[in-house]
Amino acid sequence: MDAMEALYTTRAMRRVKPDPIPEEVQKKILDAAIRAPSGGNSQGWRFLLVDDPGVKGELGPIYRSCMDTLWGTIYKDRIDAAEADPEDPESISTMKMVRSASHLAEHFESYPLFLFGFCQFDNSGGSIWPAMWNACLAARTEGVGSAVTSVFFLQLEEMKKVLGVPDDTWHFAACVSFGYPTGRWGVAPRRPVHEVSFRNSWDGDLGFEIPEPLFSMD
Amino acid sequence: MDAMEALYTTRAMRRVKPDPIPEEVQKKILDAAIRAPSGGNSQGWRFLLVDDPGVKGELGPIYRSCMDTLWGTIYKDRIDAAEADPEDPESISTMKMVRSASHLAEHFESYPLFLFGFCQFDNSGGSIWPAMWNACLAARTEGVGSAVTSVFFLQLEEMKKVLGVPDDTWHFAACVSFGYPTGRWGVAPRRPVHEVSFRNSWDGDLGFEIPEPLFSMD
Repeated sequence: MDAMEALYTTRAMRRVKPDPIPEEVQKKILDAAIRAPSGGNSQGWRFLLVDDPGVKGELGPIYRSCMDTLWGTIYKDRIDAAEADPEDPESISTMKMVRSASHLAEHFESYPLFLFGFCQFDNSGGSIWPAMWNACLAARTEGVGSAVTSVFFLQLEEMKKVLGVPDDTWHFAACVSFGYPTGRWGVAPRRPVHEVSFRNSWDGDLGFEIPEPLFSMD
Repeated sequence: MDAMEALYTTRAMRRVKPDPIPEEVQKKILDAAIRAPSGGNSQGWRFLLVDDPGVKGELGPIYRSCMDTLWGTIYKDRIDAAEADPEDPESISTMKMVRSASHLAEHFESYPLFLFGFCQFDNSGGSIWPAMWNACLAARTEGVGSAVTSVFFLQLEEMKKVLGVPDDTWHFAACVSFGYPTGRWGVAPRRPVHEVSFRNSWDGDLGFEIPEPLFSMD
């Protein structure tokens, strides 16, 4: 697969089949992950695959509890606003996101594979996120969808207990779900570059606009 | 470029030419960045390109001061150990990293382009790092090297003042340097997957080994 296709079409893909992810694909996912940089090349990372039904069965209720907390706190205002004005494009986008994230929570146990990433000696995230994102991109090249979630932060101790994570210097960074999509791949709509990018100072003129994505599936 | 080549060969590339990065390449870098996911698709990000010699001239001394602090604090023990036993493979690797990072500091003003990433509403890094890493991968597909650094954290206020970053909800995530390499691309050596990956529990058997990288330039 062309690199630009991978970069443009690796988007949160939560509607997936329960079909297992073959070992050869798991190898590609992890071997791409460890090629990422880390601060001072410390490689202070640890990757935990979860595919055991018993472990998923313990994690599922924890995840759903975290999502309930999330909707009732951080996202409450945004959801209330969306429900008050459901025809607004922003509201439609919000409710689409909520439905997709809820789908993951409700079907947690039927996802074939999860990847949990942990790191040491890193406050910025820069020593674990490139690796996690490489994992998602490598999965994409094999036709496997992924979705990144950090909401286990809301019940960190419960999650760590299930996985047997020692209570020491290892920090949880993210959980990625994997699965073969039921739908199609596409380029995610985004606010265009020239609305979020500047040059040489906070409000400095970028010097160009990019009205349409530079890659399309057509 | 094939996606796997991009994932395997995008490594810190600090020895670069002063040649400018063309506008078309800058567009590809930024447009790939914004395709990344962000928590709740919030897109709470802001990207700042820096190529003005005057701005680089103000940032260079700040960056060098940050690096001096870094070597004398976080990395002090590792460098002392490397100097005490310079033939050890670990020491050789450490000093190589130090030389490479020092090269960036000493030549800061001669890099043609920097990208500063800022984000809102994100403590995990997961809503800005995939975008920053997409930028590095997209640059790679155009033959442009990159190196990620977060050390401006050590003099955050000074850096924000130079760039005019308002003192509000925007958090600095990372700075990426760009440039056309003077050397060659290659696959970075890493601790193999089976030493840093597990299955279903913290020390659970992964079930496979990956003795050699699954992609090579040969």
